[in-house]
Amino acid sequence: MSTTPEHVEIFDTTLRDGMQVEGVSATVEDKLRIAEQLDALGVSYIEGGWPGANPKDIEFFARAAVDLRLATSSLVAFGSTRRPKGKVDDDPTLRNLVEARTGAVCIVAKSWDYHVLNALGTTLDEGEAMIADSVEFLHGHGLRVLVDAEHFFDGYKHNPEFAMRALEAAAVKGASHLVLCDTNGGSLPHEVEEIVGAVKRHFRNDVTIAIHCHDDTGCAVANAMAAVRAGARQVQGCMNGLGERTGNTNLTTVIPNLELKMGFRCLPEGRLERLTHVSHHIAELLNRPLNPQAPYVGASAFAHKAGLHVSAIRKAKDAYEHVDPELVGNGTRFVVSEMAGKATIQAKAEELGLSMDGAVVNQVIDELKRLEHEGFHFEAADASLELLMRRAAGWRQEFFSVESMRVTTDEHRDGHFSTEATVKVWVGDDRNVCVAEGNGPVNAIDTALRSALSAQYPQLADIHLTDYKVRILDGATATGAVTRVLIDATNGKRQWTTIGVSSNIIEASWQALADSLVYGLLHSSK
Amino acid sequence: MSTTPEHVEIFDTTLRDGMQVEGVSATVEDKLRIAEQLDALGVSYIEGGWPGANPKDIEFFARAAVDLRLATSSLVAFGSTRRPKGKVDDDPTLRNLVEARTGAVCIVAKSWDYHVLNALGTTLDEGEAMIADSVEFLHGHGLRVLVDAEHFFDGYKHNPEFAMRALEAAAVKGASHLVLCDTNGGSLPHEVEEIVGAVKRHFRNDVTIAIHCHDDTGCAVANAMAAVRAGARQVQGCMNGLGERTGNTNLTTVIPNLELKMGFRCLPEGRLERLTHVSHHIAELLNRPLNPQAPYVGASAFAHKAGLHVSAIRKAKDAYEHVDPELVGNGTRFVVSEMAGKATIQAKAEELGLSMDGAVVNQVIDELKRLEHEGFHFEAADASLELLMRRAAGWRQEFFSVESMRVTTDEHRDGHFSTEATVKVWVGDDRNVCVAEGNGPVNAIDTALRSALSAQYPQLADIHLTDYKVRILDGATATGAVTRVLIDATNGKRQWTTIGVSSNIIEASWQALADSLVYGLLHSSK
Repeated sequence: MSTTPEHVEIFDTTLRDGMQVEGVSATVEDKLRIAEQLDALGVSYIEGGWPGANPKDIEFFARAAVDLRLATSSLVAFGSTRRPKGKVDDDPTLRNLVEARTGAVCIVAKSWDYHVLNALGTTLDEGEAMIADSVEFLHGHGLRVLVDAEHFFDGYKHNPEFAMRALEAAAVKGASHLVLCDTNGGSLPHEVEEIVGAVKRHFRNDVTIAIHCHDDTGCAVANAMAAVRAGARQVQGCMNGLGERTGNTNLTTVIPNLELKMGFRCLPEGRLERLTHVSHHIAELLNRPLNPQAPYVGASAFAHKAGLHVSAIRKAKDAYEHVDPELVGNGTRFVVSEMAGKATIQAKAEELGLSMDGAVVNQVIDELKRLEHEGFHFEAADASLELLMRRAAGWRQEFFSVESMRVTTDEHRDGHFSTEATVKVWVGDDRNVCVAEGNGPVNAIDTALRSALSAQYPQLADIHLTDYKVRILDGATATGAVTRVLIDATNGKRQWTTIGVSSNIIEASWQALADSLVYGLLHSSK
Repeated sequence: MSTTPEHVEIFDTTLRDGMQVEGVSATVEDKLRIAEQLDALGVSYIEGGWPGANPKDIEFFARAAVDLRLATSSLVAFGSTRRPKGKVDDDPTLRNLVEARTGAVCIVAKSWDYHVLNALGTTLDEGEAMIADSVEFLHGHGLRVLVDAEHFFDGYKHNPEFAMRALEAAAVKGASHLVLCDTNGGSLPHEVEEIVGAVKRHFRNDVTIAIHCHDDTGCAVANAMAAVRAGARQVQGCMNGLGERTGNTNLTTVIPNLELKMGFRCLPEGRLERLTHVSHHIAELLNRPLNPQAPYVGASAFAHKAGLHVSAIRKAKDAYEHVDPELVGNGTRFVVSEMAGKATIQAKAEELGLSMDGAVVNQVIDELKRLEHEGFHFEAADASLELLMRRAAGWRQEFFSVESMRVTTDEHRDGHFSTEATVKVWVGDDRNVCVAEGNGPVNAIDTALRSALSAQYPQLADIHLTDYKVRILDGATATGAVTRVLIDATNGKRQWTTIGVSSNIIEASWQALADSLVYGLLHSSK
């Protein structure tokens, strides 16, 4: 008989604290898309931002209230306690929180006496009153109130009596969660376990204890687990370890640790296997490549080097892998003897209505291996994969052939830039030469090629490119590095993605662009 | 009265286990240079490789014996126990270890019964004899023998009796260190602390207990510290968290944790402050950019973003930073972004030695807001920010001015691509016109511009571009979207990043490139 596992809530702050990481800046649209991913994963809370701190976050909450349909997660607005000596009724931060129209709010409160006295420049009594008044006010507006006890661990080490008074003030006025924050990130697991234990013994089950760590000692995940061992039942963190400085607790690591190794339940049934996908999707939305070494979700997390026999791992996976990678939606990978699944290619061929014998399937696999070694990545480029498979099966595109292409960018004496592309293409026996200007080289070649094909293929007018992504592979060789271009397109009915790879960004873009138009023509002519 | 802190030995395996990370391959020369860096840092042991497993490692030990002068560290050769049913006298692995001419060797031994029975395909008695015989043989050759108990934690959980027999066999025959390995990386700190405690109670001080972890649960550092708490006195790991899958215990994190937070001594006096430099130098030698989020040594580890904190940090650093960054050779950094307040800009100006009055500061803030709205993102581009601030303070760069630039990419009839750039620049009264080919447009303009400036500025030869990143902003307008380019460069002493933004990727690249060279000239001419 199995007992129901105890629940540890996951509070995701990717959209608030995560945005403090250097080099990331997300649009409101990006943030809405990320919130949908987090909901699909099934975290309990999504902290969306700090309305009032910046206009982007106000817009986010306004749009979220209208557009965002969350099935699993609750949206949370972040703010702070009222100002010193101020009144709750005319406090702009508190008003913004109420106006964010979320069911729950999280406010930061100072629990280290030093910060009350020096950063706020007020008395400890007033510091305590700021917390009590603010919680009371927000709770009175029908909101669930989580209180971030900022610098709690440092505060507790310096003045445990005031740190506990700060928590008491929040709890008494109706806070649902006391969030113990290791704001400077300097704590170690044994300290966290001891201090959280003391807090838990004090409050018992009156209020939920939550843990919020940063990775400055490389222990954010271990600290969160130590807190759970001591009684915390909410873990705050960010996807992919985003966050200021060294990052917040990495949720993509701590969730599987808690579920697979410590017997807790964090996500609804069946969601853990989405973890790798959601992690990669968010990395993609933020254009921030995921660390391949990331535990559980990284490309190398279950990669085995040569020497370790596939057959040995097959015989007893748990003798060679600490968990089954499929539990988190990842997979075993053999780095040298790469197994590019025959069955997958066969299934894909059937889906496309291509008849492929074993020899052709092997040829496709060899071609895939060669191209992926060069930097292609077909998982993200369904349309290029389809064209590659059709070509392997003997198909040739006869829509057009390119005689030559030239694109020139000029910087003029006044600093103004201009770009012009010339393409010469054959459509059957017709030779079309077209020139076009563009606001950049890729735009110019796109315009010139379409113009050269428009007479014979008016349906190209229905094909729109919707996204263009560039990733530099092997950045260390700098401007001589290999470039990967992905182009998304649509004809209003279907969407597709093509890929190009080259050390020349123009060539890579041109490959992806030509494939995109060919794919569009292929599927519009049927 | 202060007592002498207890010593925890650091055993670095960057040159052996670290080389298992995907995408890294070091030459013998690289490995010798890395060993020198590790010696300068002052680790106790440097594991250099597996002589016999590959010819490169045999060459490394041969050259090390002649060329490498280590002042602090001992070099270690890695190998394994003798073959099942084999004899020690004619075992090639053991012979290679002796011939490596190091004072110490580390051999891997199987301590999980499953692996003895299934991977080796032999009996537990023979598994034990393989360990005993091999240690006795190597010890008999006057070598210090460390024994890696492979899969120790999993083995102990399945069959503690055999796991302990394996350790006993090594200890009895004279092993100096029993290295408890969490080979699959699945253990959590509380398990490690319990199991290491049991081993320590059994062996007391007869032999040194060492800990070797992998980061598959994101807990390698915490696990190593848990082992030290339980009595381990050697920590094995890799610089910068290199290693197979998710990496080994990150020494750049665990060393300062042990020294600054747990009161142990790991390195000779005065060496800890070399940590950041050695970490970056090794990353450079391996051509593997350091994660800016890395604890202690990362560029973001002590970076502060939220504008409201800057003035407060200066008042009381230890209220905002978990340790003084100078203790590990890093420094506090104030990150400037659109959220920046006056204090941040003022602090940055002082850092640069610029005198700025309030009006100029406001002008900088307005300019930053305007440019960030266009898509610039200065927190990632310190050098462009510095140039912007200098220009606001009245400075003009007089190194060169561009008359015009042209770059052309051609696709030829055979599908071959070629790219050519022409730049016309003035250096003082000299007009230089240069043309260059490149493997892409950015490479071509970089080459042409350098060539046009090389006569007057030979120091440009020392400036290397190390990374080139492209992000498409507002991808939804596809090939007409705005492009953000970031270029990293170095002159061997300092590193800097510049930014360019335009709907024309060539213009954006050109801005970043020109700024990068200007910054390099500015700081090399001082």
